[in-house]
Amino acid sequence: MSLEGMIREMASEARKAARGMRRVERPQKDAALGLMAAGLKERRAEIKRENAKDVSMAREGGLSSAMIDRLTLTDKVIDEMAAGLQEIAALPDPVGQVTGMWKRPNGLQVGRVRIPLGVIGFIYESRPNVTVDAAGLCLKSGNAVILKGGSEALRSNLILAEILSKALADSGLPEKAVQVIPTTDREALTYLLQMEEQIDLIIPRGGEGLIRFVAAHSRIPVLKHYKGVCHVYVDEEADLTLASDICYNAKVQRPGVCNAMETMLVHESISGKFLPAMARRFRDAGVEIRGCPKTLALVPGAKAAVEADWPAEFLDLILAVKVVSSMEEALDHIEKYGSNHTEAIVTTNYDRGRRFLAEVDSSVVLINASTRFNDGFQLGLGAEIGISTSKLHAFGPMGLEELTTTKFIVYGSGQVRT
Amino acid sequence: MSLEGMIREMASEARKAARGMRRVERPQKDAALGLMAAGLKERRAEIKRENAKDVSMAREGGLSSAMIDRLTLTDKVIDEMAAGLQEIAALPDPVGQVTGMWKRPNGLQVGRVRIPLGVIGFIYESRPNVTVDAAGLCLKSGNAVILKGGSEALRSNLILAEILSKALADSGLPEKAVQVIPTTDREALTYLLQMEEQIDLIIPRGGEGLIRFVAAHSRIPVLKHYKGVCHVYVDEEADLTLASDICYNAKVQRPGVCNAMETMLVHESISGKFLPAMARRFRDAGVEIRGCPKTLALVPGAKAAVEADWPAEFLDLILAVKVVSSMEEALDHIEKYGSNHTEAIVTTNYDRGRRFLAEVDSSVVLINASTRFNDGFQLGLGAEIGISTSKLHAFGPMGLEELTTTKFIVYGSGQVRT
Repeated sequence: MSLEGMIREMASEARKAARGMRRVERPQKDAALGLMAAGLKERRAEIKRENAKDVSMAREGGLSSAMIDRLTLTDKVIDEMAAGLQEIAALPDPVGQVTGMWKRPNGLQVGRVRIPLGVIGFIYESRPNVTVDAAGLCLKSGNAVILKGGSEALRSNLILAEILSKALADSGLPEKAVQVIPTTDREALTYLLQMEEQIDLIIPRGGEGLIRFVAAHSRIPVLKHYKGVCHVYVDEEADLTLASDICYNAKVQRPGVCNAMETMLVHESISGKFLPAMARRFRDAGVEIRGCPKTLALVPGAKAAVEADWPAEFLDLILAVKVVSSMEEALDHIEKYGSNHTEAIVTTNYDRGRRFLAEVDSSVVLINASTRFNDGFQLGLGAEIGISTSKLHAFGPMGLEELTTTKFIVYGSGQVRT
Repeated sequence: MSLEGMIREMASEARKAARGMRRVERPQKDAALGLMAAGLKERRAEIKRENAKDVSMAREGGLSSAMIDRLTLTDKVIDEMAAGLQEIAALPDPVGQVTGMWKRPNGLQVGRVRIPLGVIGFIYESRPNVTVDAAGLCLKSGNAVILKGGSEALRSNLILAEILSKALADSGLPEKAVQVIPTTDREALTYLLQMEEQIDLIIPRGGEGLIRFVAAHSRIPVLKHYKGVCHVYVDEEADLTLASDICYNAKVQRPGVCNAMETMLVHESISGKFLPAMARRFRDAGVEIRGCPKTLALVPGAKAAVEADWPAEFLDLILAVKVVSSMEEALDHIEKYGSNHTEAIVTTNYDRGRRFLAEVDSSVVLINASTRFNDGFQLGLGAEIGISTSKLHAFGPMGLEELTTTKFIVYGSGQVRT
């Protein structure tokens, strides 16, 4: 069979499986998640054997040790994957939830009910544990999923998918509801992205290159997240101790993630009091500061920021700092350079806090809290399959609900239109 | 300026206008809608003069009289456009609505609030009154809109846009929140569809050709609706009088629209009693029946259906009819040939009604009511900007809410992540 034929066949099997998943009730889905978790633990020797082949190829291929760390499935990672599936089983089932129901003057009773999206294509890099996470979330929300992981994790992903499919079959669910594309050929991805009749949604997770490739080639809707250029604005009426803790946490606690702060905006009137001490705290944590001219005057040893620093996602211990003369200037800066991801204000002023929340066009906007809270678990969604920075369908962290849509149901008693 | 430069400039102006629209409260939007309505009435002579130029060009170009009818702006159509804007003003404002709020164990108060999508590109054919409708709905939902109508309506659309923009400016709102692309060049559309940084959503409305063109060329998310191949299934336990009225209404009341019935599925056990009389009623209304072999045996004079009739959207007084031996067969037929648009069952059986609602994967599923109710006004959304048959963001009729998204707002008191 040609590569295109194989992808078409997989998409068509996924569509059939999705139809089967539509009518499955929660206990059966939770039982399957439990069997999946048990399967991972029971077959851990097999998983580690296949994973070791991936790891040894990766070593030969000269992958960085960080990449090899992410690729390696230890007993601890396998236990965590199993625990993750159990946590998904414990979450409420979004499918079947009636989000509203009302009566029309002609007696029609109209409601909206949550249904699965259908077939989801999930494209990701490295980390084979994402295979299990994504499959669990798609199953719980009643969807079928086709997974395309990084080529360096192919053998690991295939054994994981085999275990997951077996658990589906053993629970009486369609085993093709979870499929991994069994090739490293990038053409397979291009074919997948054309199957708009069979696939309802594409979710890419990985570097900006992968996401731009997917967005450029897909005929299917894509929920994507390019980058997080997150700002904290320290207002003239901020509590400066609180501001220091929030900014420090937002930059230093985990600098390599999308919800870390990349630019700090400081109101001029408190900059003399706030910036020098803040900069010392950052310096002690190894943070390099790239400042505007006013920042440089207050922070000896800081580098001068260049234009490219303002829209940069450093993902590292580097911070751009700008002193602004008003909140308007901060809002304009965020509008120009921000990525609609996460922005925070630190203030004790009621009106400016309210205005910041209203006017900043980002998926998560916070008052007096760290940008690091843009996360499905932290915000209380229970799980997270990714973060969307485009506004269609989902804006911000995506949980189980975001893997569903609603249809209208109508109870009539013979109504016709006149 | 080059065509591409012009489109880029328009998109950039729209983005700026969208930022201005974000903070506008309801009274100001409703006042602008009122001024727009007044402007249309006051300047009706100008509108008719510009429209007459379009109509005369269309006549010279040999457009069909039906097309010319749709193009012509009479006093009645102008009054209806103005009344439509007043109706939009009377609808509730979706922006700012808090769809949920909860507290996290660490004290963070997390909520979701409705916000405008931003910039919408609206692509449509013929009918200049759609210009006014779409602009009104986008304004009320706090969005900026770029409109690209049919080339035959260019002069009409430009004068309408001028009147709408003036009303925006007179209300203190950004006048670039409504813009019409001032050219008939199709390249303009291609450029528009590339402006993914500036435009958040594309809504095409028109024939399947236009919609496929837009879907194939857009880098921006598209809410689309290819076609409506709607089914009514008459169950073995249907009330046959009610079934006859519903099927008649679904086919005959307005056959040229997307929510009209195209295929009727009839359970075998009542087909002998139901079909001959139903067919006579259809024949009297001029409906051509294309039936399966069992239908042909019961309906003398019916044509034999060919394979191409089952997925066909006739948009005419033509009906495909199939006798099925079970509801499963009806469900399979809908799964294979349906368009996820609108499906209805006629039955007095509780379990089968419930199962049909649950299993049919269409945007609107009805029990004992006509398919013609798939419509934003009829279902109680108050207005309609289109119908989506893809599941992302909106599935089914789209009202004002579907022109918004939600962002997360977080009230903290110094929380950081540990």
